[in-house]
Amino acid sequence: MKTLAQAFHHTLQDIYYAEQALTKSLPKVADAASNADFKALVNAHLKETKEQIKLLDKVFASIGEKAVGVKCDAMDGLIKETDGIIKEATGVALDASLISAAQAVEHYEIARYGTLREWAKVLGHSEAHDLLSQILDMEKAANSKLTGLAVTVVNTTKKAA
Amino acid sequence: MKTLAQAFHHTLQDIYYAEQALTKSLPKVADAASNADFKALVNAHLKETKEQIKLLDKVFASIGEKAVGVKCDAMDGLIKETDGIIKEATGVALDASLISAAQAVEHYEIARYGTLREWAKVLGHSEAHDLLSQILDMEKAANSKLTGLAVTVVNTTKKAA
Repeated sequence: MKTLAQAFHHTLQDIYYAEQALTKSLPKVADAASNADFKALVNAHLKETKEQIKLLDKVFASIGEKAVGVKCDAMDGLIKETDGIIKEATGVALDASLISAAQAVEHYEIARYGTLREWAKVLGHSEAHDLLSQILDMEKAANSKLTGLAVTVVNTTKKAA
Repeated sequence: MKTLAQAFHHTLQDIYYAEQALTKSLPKVADAASNADFKALVNAHLKETKEQIKLLDKVFASIGEKAVGVKCDAMDGLIKETDGIIKEATGVALDASLISAAQAVEHYEIARYGTLREWAKVLGHSEAHDLLSQILDMEKAANSKLTGLAVTVVNTTKKAA
């Protein structure tokens, strides 16, 4: 990997793998969660993640490359952390920690799409730039919803305590 | 892990491990980077990370707990990704990808400290809340500097191409 074009292609493969890994992780999170609003949010984000994979297919097509993922150690680590929470936590610790882990995932994706969008612009890939901006906006909106929910969930706990 | 207090303590241990792991990773990033501004930024952030560990020591003390880390799979994954870049990339792909990986790390930390700060407030740990807010602001500032640098580095490349 020497050029920015190669770095762009590699990072695109990386996030393609990451989104696919998420489609396997999110149903486990929805099953484990007890808060109904969080469960609904995770299920909605699962649908959105599948749409994002289709948008990434278009990004690959727009630069004349085949849509293929490469192992993403960071997303594997984030998912391993989520699996650990499901195994070790119960009650409010479970919901609060799962929401927090979901926010960490969103932040990772926001960082990645922010980079990819900027690189697409520099490389003159205008269609890819627009598609990646669309996905970035979806991730930012998902993170905002999680932040709102996080505050509600922990404050409800406070009142119940 | 059942209560919010337990989730707070666990997540604090998690980020304590993560910051310590970073102090071992950042010198490798500074060595590998070729852009002088990026090298300087990484070295400055290494110093800042060591300060943050001291601030975390104070957070542990403020809640009457011993400062101990627990394995953080997410940070391990992020560092593994960074190691992969150092191994596989050269030239502009190396610098651009390392800056991008550093931003992913900052975003992870921003998510974590955002959660911890909110939980500290709900739990009535006002000293911990203030210390964690201080660290969160440092991470946000570091991320902003990286964003500025990322734009400069890839645009310099564009002109050179």
